[in-house]
Amino acid sequence: MRHLIDFGDLSRAEWEALYKSTSAIIDHPADFMDVCRGRVASTLFFEPSTRTNFSFQTAMLRVGGTVFGFADPKSSSVAKGECLKDTIKMVSGYADVVIMRNPREGAAKAASLYSDVPVINAGDGGHMHPTQTTTDLTTITRMLGGVDGISIGLCGDLKNGRTVHSLIKALAKFDNVKFYLISPRELAIPEYIRAFMKEKNLWSVEVTGLENVIPQLDVLYMTRIQRERFVDPLEYERNKGIYVLTKRKLERARKNMLVMHPLPRVDEIALDVDDDPRAAYFEQARYGMFSRMALLADLANQPRIKPEAVEIGTTPVCSNPRCITQTDPYLPPLVKQNGGVDCCAYCDAALH
Amino acid sequence: MRHLIDFGDLSRAEWEALYKSTSAIIDHPADFMDVCRGRVASTLFFEPSTRTNFSFQTAMLRVGGTVFGFADPKSSSVAKGECLKDTIKMVSGYADVVIMRNPREGAAKAASLYSDVPVINAGDGGHMHPTQTTTDLTTITRMLGGVDGISIGLCGDLKNGRTVHSLIKALAKFDNVKFYLISPRELAIPEYIRAFMKEKNLWSVEVTGLENVIPQLDVLYMTRIQRERFVDPLEYERNKGIYVLTKRKLERARKNMLVMHPLPRVDEIALDVDDDPRAAYFEQARYGMFSRMALLADLANQPRIKPEAVEIGTTPVCSNPRCITQTDPYLPPLVKQNGGVDCCAYCDAALH
Amino acid sequence: MRHLIDFGDLSRAEWEALYKSTSAIIDHPADFMDVCRGRVASTLFFEPSTRTNFSFQTAMLRVGGTVFGFADPKSSSVAKGECLKDTIKMVSGYADVVIMRNPREGAAKAASLYSDVPVINAGDGGHMHPTQTTTDLTTITRMLGGVDGISIGLCGDLKNGRTVHSLIKALAKFDNVKFYLISPRELAIPEYIRAFMKEKNLWSVEVTGLENVIPQLDVLYMTRIQRERFVDPLEYERNKGIYVLTKRKLERARKNMLVMHPLPRVDEIALDVDDDPRAAYFEQARYGMFSRMALLADLANQPRIKPEAVEIGTTPVCSNPRCITQTDPYLPPLVKQNGGVDCCAYCDAALH
Repeated sequence: MRHLIDFGDLSRAEWEALYKSTSAIIDHPADFMDVCRGRVASTLFFEPSTRTNFSFQTAMLRVGGTVFGFADPKSSSVAKGECLKDTIKMVSGYADVVIMRNPREGAAKAASLYSDVPVINAGDGGHMHPTQTTTDLTTITRMLGGVDGISIGLCGDLKNGRTVHSLIKALAKFDNVKFYLISPRELAIPEYIRAFMKEKNLWSVEVTGLENVIPQLDVLYMTRIQRERFVDPLEYERNKGIYVLTKRKLERARKNMLVMHPLPRVDEIALDVDDDPRAAYFEQARYGMFSRMALLADLANQPRIKPEAVEIGTTPVCSNPRCITQTDPYLPPLVKQNGGVDCCAYCDAALH
Repeated sequence: MRHLIDFGDLSRAEWEALYKSTSAIIDHPADFMDVCRGRVASTLFFEPSTRTNFSFQTAMLRVGGTVFGFADPKSSSVAKGECLKDTIKMVSGYADVVIMRNPREGAAKAASLYSDVPVINAGDGGHMHPTQTTTDLTTITRMLGGVDGISIGLCGDLKNGRTVHSLIKALAKFDNVKFYLISPRELAIPEYIRAFMKEKNLWSVEVTGLENVIPQLDVLYMTRIQRERFVDPLEYERNKGIYVLTKRKLERARKNMLVMHPLPRVDEIALDVDDDPRAAYFEQARYGMFSRMALLADLANQPRIKPEAVEIGTTPVCSNPRCITQTDPYLPPLVKQNGGVDCCAYCDAALH
Repeated sequence: MRHLIDFGDLSRAEWEALYKSTSAIIDHPADFMDVCRGRVASTLFFEPSTRTNFSFQTAMLRVGGTVFGFADPKSSSVAKGECLKDTIKMVSGYADVVIMRNPREGAAKAASLYSDVPVINAGDGGHMHPTQTTTDLTTITRMLGGVDGISIGLCGDLKNGRTVHSLIKALAKFDNVKFYLISPRELAIPEYIRAFMKEKNLWSVEVTGLENVIPQLDVLYMTRIQRERFVDPLEYERNKGIYVLTKRKLERARKNMLVMHPLPRVDEIALDVDDDPRAAYFEQARYGMFSRMALLADLANQPRIKPEAVEIGTTPVCSNPRCITQTDPYLPPLVKQNGGVDCCAYCDAALH
C-alpha cells in the first residue's frame, strides 16, 4: 500500500496485516512510541472535522511523529487561488505523509498523482472515508473476536450515509455476514449498493422497524437522520422516534451486542444507553486512533518517490458537479471500470 | 490530586508539594525535559485566550509531551451540536490530560465527571482560573522567599476580578497576610469575599487611593479597570489616573516590592515602570509556564480511570444563567455546601 | 548573528557559513534530527502565510524542536489591544526563538529590542523577507554550484516585488553576476534599486520582452503580475502573455537553466513547464525548509539574554504610514544611515 484512497483497494490479506499491527499497538502501545520518530505528517483539512483531525494528530504523536497543517481553509491562505497540485507538491516537499480531507470527491486520488509521499484520504466529499471503515472493522474484530459470520444492523439514513456504504463494501470481503438494513423507506440504501450486494451474494433484509430486529444482531450500527433529508417534514416527525436507540429497546438485545456510531451522535442514541456495557461508540473512537497509528507506522516510514509525470487535462470528462476535476481541470481524465461500466477514476461516478 | 478544578481544593501541603516541584523545574529544567515523554495533552479552548493557551502548550512541550487541540470553537466543528459530555469522552480517549477553557461556569467540574483522564480548568467563565493562582503564588514565593506575613495590595477592579477573588481565597491558606484592597468604591470587593475574609480572620483595609499605601506593600498586584464597568462614564474619567502605576509613584515603594499583573496590561501600568527592577509581571508569566510544567508532570502521568456512572439530570436545579447546567441539562444536579449554604456544585452559585 | 531581520546584515562569510550548514543538513538530515531537542519555537503570524508558516514549522520539527503559535491574528486574542512589546516579552519568556510575520514594516526590528531570545523576520509588510532570500541563494548555489558569475533574469512585477528587491541586494555580495530585468515599463525596478545597482557597479540590462533574453540566462526567476498593479486595465491585458513562461518558450533556454518562483504561482508559469527538468520551483520550496533548519539549528540554541533597556519614544520621527512606529509609538526613534541618508531604522524609509 502506497496511498490509502479507498478501503476497497485493500485485499483481505492487507486488511488482516493492518489489523494485526493495530492489535499489537493496542496491547503494547509503549513499544510503538518511537516508530515514526523524525517523521512529519501534514494534516490538510479543506473542510473542518475536529474528530478526524484530532484522531490523526494524536495517532501521529503517539507513534513518535510530529504534525503540522491547517484545520479549516478559512484560516489558511493555501486554498486561495492555488491549485491542488501545487499545494500537494509544496506540502509533500515538507512532510513524510499527507492526510487530507477535502469537500471535493476524488481529491485524494488527485493528490496521489503529484505527491512525493503517501497520501491518506481523511474523507473526500460524500465519496470515501477509508479510515472510518478501518476504525469500524477494528472495533468489531477486537470486541467480538472477528467479522466472519456476524449479523449487523445498519440503522438510520442508509441512502446518504457514506460511512454505511463504505462499511457494507468492506464487510463484503468477509464470509457469512448477515445485513439487517433498518431505515425509513425514503432513506433506504441506494440502488447501486443493492446491486453490489446482490452481485456479491450477500445475505440482507430491508426493514423499516428497529425494535423487532434487535434480538438478531451482534452489531447495531446507528447513524443520524437529518431533518433536511426528508422531502416532507411531517415524514421526519413521523419517523423520528423509530430510529432512535433507548435503554428500553436494548432490553431485547443480545448480552454481547455492540452498539456503534461514527459520532457525533445527536439524539439517535439516548444518553441512558451510554452506561450500558454494550455501548461501544466511545471505545470505537479510541480504536480509530490505534488504527490510524498502525496506518502511519507503515505509510509515514516509506521512502520519498517522485511520481511519474501525468498528462495535463483540459476539459473534464466527468460530469459529476462535485468531482475534483471540475475545479482542477488540468487533472488527467482517468477512467476506471466499476462492474463493467466506465467511471471517473477520481469520484467513481459513471461517465455518460 | 486527580483534577485541578478549583485551587481551593488543594490543601496547603498539596500546594507546598506543587511549589517544590515547580522550584526544582525552574532550577534544573533540563532534568524534566522528558518526564512526560509519550504523553499527549489536549487543549480545548471554547473561548480564545492566547496567553493561557500558549503557556500550557509550552509547558507540555518542555516536559517532553505533545499537544493537540483547538484555540477557538469558531474554527472547530466539535462545539456544534455536540454536548460537552461527548466531546470529553472522545477527547479523553485520545489524550492523557484535558486542559479546558470554557465560557460556562462549572464546565471543568462537569468535564471531570466523564473524563477518563485528569482535567485542568484553564478558566470557566467568571468562576475559577486555578492556574493563574498557582502562577501568582509561585511568583511571590520564588521572588520574596515565601507568602506568610506579606503585605499585598490588590488594585483596580476588585468587584469583577476573578483573578483577585481566587488569589484572596488562596492567600487565606497562609499566615499573617495583610490585604490592602485598593479600588474605586463602585468596584470594591463583593460582599461574599468580604464575608469570607471576615470568617477567615484575615487582616484587611479598603482604600480608594493607591499612592498612600504603596510604602506599606511587599506586593502590588495591579488589575485593569474597564470603562464598561462604571455605570457613569464620567466616574471612569474621574478615576482613571488614580489606579494607574507610574514610575513616579514607585519612588515611594519598598526596594523589593513586586509589581504583578495577570496581563494583558493596557494603561494601568505605564511603560516607564517596565525597566524598574521591581516590575515582575513578565517574569510572572514565565513562572506560570514553570508552574504548569509541574502540574502536567503530575497529572499527565496518571493512569486512565473510567469514572463511575453518574445520574442523568433532567431540569437544572441551579438558576445561574451562566452555569453549565443550563446548556447541558443531562448533568447530575450536584449540590455542595459553601459556608452552610446549599450551592451548585458546578458554579458555586447559591441555590434558591 | 543574534537576530535575522534583514539579509543585508549578513556578511558574505556569514552567508557562506549558513549555506555550509544547510548543505550538510541536505546531505545528512538524520544527523541533525536532534540538534534542537528541548527547544521551542513560537510562530507569530500577524498576517497569514501558509507556505512560510509550514516551512518554518517543518524546519523546527525536523531539527528535533517543537512549535507553538498562531496562524492568523483573527483567531488569536493576543493582537487585541496588546502592544507588540508586551506580546514579545511574554512569548520570549516561553520560547527559545521567535519567528514573526507582521504586516507592519519594521516590526521584526522592533521585536528584537525587547525579546530575550533571537527573532527571525518571516516577512514585515512590503519591507523584508530574509528567509526567502536564503531560500533563493541556497537553491542557486546547490543546483548550479555557486552564485558568482551567473546570469539571472528577474521577470514580472519588479516594482512591487519585495522578494526581487531583496534578492538583488543579496546577489550584490557576489562577483560578476549579470542581471536581466524583464518587466513592463510600468512595473520596472524602483529608482532606489537602480541607484543601488549603480553604486555597487552591478551589470544589468532592462528589457520589456522575455523570449529574447532566455538563451542568455542561468536562472530565470519568475514573479506574478497582479492586475491591480496596472493603472490601465487594458495595459494589463496587453502585457499578460509576455511575462508568462510556457514550455514553448523554454525551447530556447540553456539545458541547465533553473526556473525559479517564490510561489504561489497562478498563471505566470504554465503547467506544462512543471515536468521540464529545469523547473526548480518546488525543489526551491524544499530547499527553503532546509535553509530554515540551518537557521534554527543556530538561533534556537542561543542563550537567553535580557536586552538593554531602551528609550521610550513619544511621537514617531518616521512618516511612513506603514511603519511599526505608527502603531507602537513607544518605540525608541532609532535612525540609521542608508547611503548617507538618514532613514528610519525600522522600515528604512528616508526621514524628511
